[in-house]
Amino acid sequence: MSSPAAQQPSPQLFFQTVNSYQRTEALKAAIELRVFTAIGEGNETASDIAKRCDTSERGMRILCDFLCTIGFLNKDNQHYSLTVDSAVFLDGNSPAYLGGALEFLLSPELTYGFKNVAESVRKGGTVMPDEGTVTPENPIWVKFARAMAPMMAMPAQLIVKLVDEKADRKLKILDIAAGHGLYGIAFAKNNPQAEVTAVDWPNVLEVAKENAAAAGVSDRHSTIPGSAFDVDYGTGYDLVLLTNFLHHFDPPTNEKLLRKVHDALAEGGRAVTLEFVPNEDRISPPEAAGFSMMMLGSTPNGDAYTFAELEQMAANAGFARSELHPLPPTIEQVVISYK
Amino acid sequence: MSSPAAQQPSPQLFFQTVNSYQRTEALKAAIELRVFTAIGEGNETASDIAKRCDTSERGMRILCDFLCTIGFLNKDNQHYSLTVDSAVFLDGNSPAYLGGALEFLLSPELTYGFKNVAESVRKGGTVMPDEGTVTPENPIWVKFARAMAPMMAMPAQLIVKLVDEKADRKLKILDIAAGHGLYGIAFAKNNPQAEVTAVDWPNVLEVAKENAAAAGVSDRHSTIPGSAFDVDYGTGYDLVLLTNFLHHFDPPTNEKLLRKVHDALAEGGRAVTLEFVPNEDRISPPEAAGFSMMMLGSTPNGDAYTFAELEQMAANAGFARSELHPLPPTIEQVVISYK
Repeated sequence: MSSPAAQQPSPQLFFQTVNSYQRTEALKAAIELRVFTAIGEGNETASDIAKRCDTSERGMRILCDFLCTIGFLNKDNQHYSLTVDSAVFLDGNSPAYLGGALEFLLSPELTYGFKNVAESVRKGGTVMPDEGTVTPENPIWVKFARAMAPMMAMPAQLIVKLVDEKADRKLKILDIAAGHGLYGIAFAKNNPQAEVTAVDWPNVLEVAKENAAAAGVSDRHSTIPGSAFDVDYGTGYDLVLLTNFLHHFDPPTNEKLLRKVHDALAEGGRAVTLEFVPNEDRISPPEAAGFSMMMLGSTPNGDAYTFAELEQMAANAGFARSELHPLPPTIEQVVISYK
Repeated sequence: MSSPAAQQPSPQLFFQTVNSYQRTEALKAAIELRVFTAIGEGNETASDIAKRCDTSERGMRILCDFLCTIGFLNKDNQHYSLTVDSAVFLDGNSPAYLGGALEFLLSPELTYGFKNVAESVRKGGTVMPDEGTVTPENPIWVKFARAMAPMMAMPAQLIVKLVDEKADRKLKILDIAAGHGLYGIAFAKNNPQAEVTAVDWPNVLEVAKENAAAAGVSDRHSTIPGSAFDVDYGTGYDLVLLTNFLHHFDPPTNEKLLRKVHDALAEGGRAVTLEFVPNEDRISPPEAAGFSMMMLGSTPNGDAYTFAELEQMAANAGFARSELHPLPPTIEQVVISYK
């Protein structure tokens, strides 16, 4: 229901959006100061949280109030408490803690791409040097592999459940642009007959190898160092994982890659693509659609592709058909393409 | 109504907030490229808007889609259109255009204060040099006076209507930290018997004088250059305007100023304070409460004060009573304190 007052023009959204960089900075400060961890430990007042985090009380009161206004804390009679999401993802004592992701998401290398969005719009791509984040052997992907790994536990589990729930068959898996390697590793952990080959830049594969060792699956985890566009994959794979990879490139480049993937699959094999997939209107759901801006700022030609576009790329590469699967509660979706 | 799914922990708000600096940058780009103006002129497709703004079509499509996801544009079948708010406030051909406010709101001098919020929280105040934005004669206030003037037209009209609707009496007005001078000037324009004296730094008063001349009220507009804490106001004022000023200082400093204001008022005179006034919980409404972070980042001791706090400061300074008046559709409120 909209009231007549809601129709009166207001500059409120303008102000809120102009100042929204302060939301980023306040959340970053709260994570750096371990505010959520302090509250999780039982510190509830600005005074107690400030003592625990070694800050001024005044500064902590203003920060905690601000975190309430943007949805990260609750406040009741001067006592702050964690929201459900903050307790799970931002308390440093939670196994699902995601605060470390800032090391990648707010790295100077990545945020540089958004310092001049007007110029990116003029140009139609990143203003970063070379090819932005997709420059060969860009060290940002080592940072990504280390910082973003904790974000991947949940989607990795969900994909395994979607694609290999029974875990009762031998599976030869190719994990393309594996990064931290956690998607392939999740299959190996779930299915003792799964064997994973991970492709990525050599410096990034070191992180994947560490993670495979930590998961106790090194004996079923091998690597192919180099560009996914150049290296020889081998053949006979049951699954090829393409997690958060296609969005970095334009459709012709993706089709070329998908043809190579198609060739590497055994008959009846599946390509499993994890992506931010907006609806056909490209503006909903807002979180997935908004990922397109991330690609404009950080790559020459990347995008958040609709299912119709991903389906077409797969069809052009020889796949028989593709299916779209939501992956709640994540904002990403899985496209399964059948050889 | 909350569904069970809403209770499932989600990292969505975390992601959205970490990346919210991109909202600031995208809106800035759209204003720089005059995207809203181009759409207001009748360009509706990404291709046409890109041509008008001299950008790539791909970059413009991604920018416009992003502006849809954050509420600044509508999209229907590849055709973009302005929202009510964007048409009024962001189309360069609208008389209420506010885009120029970015010159202040996103000035390096101001955003500098939010580059290390953790340190501000530790310290309890700005990390800017000297006293931040309240350093004497800080040239940022000239920028403010020029860039923010268009934002003030609506609140100035609303205050005049609240305080001097009949405009049938002689009014001697003191406009403290006048800046652009538009609040005092609005009274002078509305009431031919109003005489305004504006106080501010000499460099800022040049802007107020220009605006008084442009409004044709120079003969009833005089100035007192210097710090509002130091200069001699004179006496016998019917109204003293304190618009967006008290939030820069701590309560003892404000009480000192309010005592000086009290002394300058005639019997029955009123101090008219425009402020971001959060409720007693300090977290609602979010826009007014969130202004506290602006003060933490940019001043040593400023804050968004509750009505109880403002009322107490006025009472301690000798005022008989204070009233709170909302000023919709703005997010600020007016406190009228009676001598």
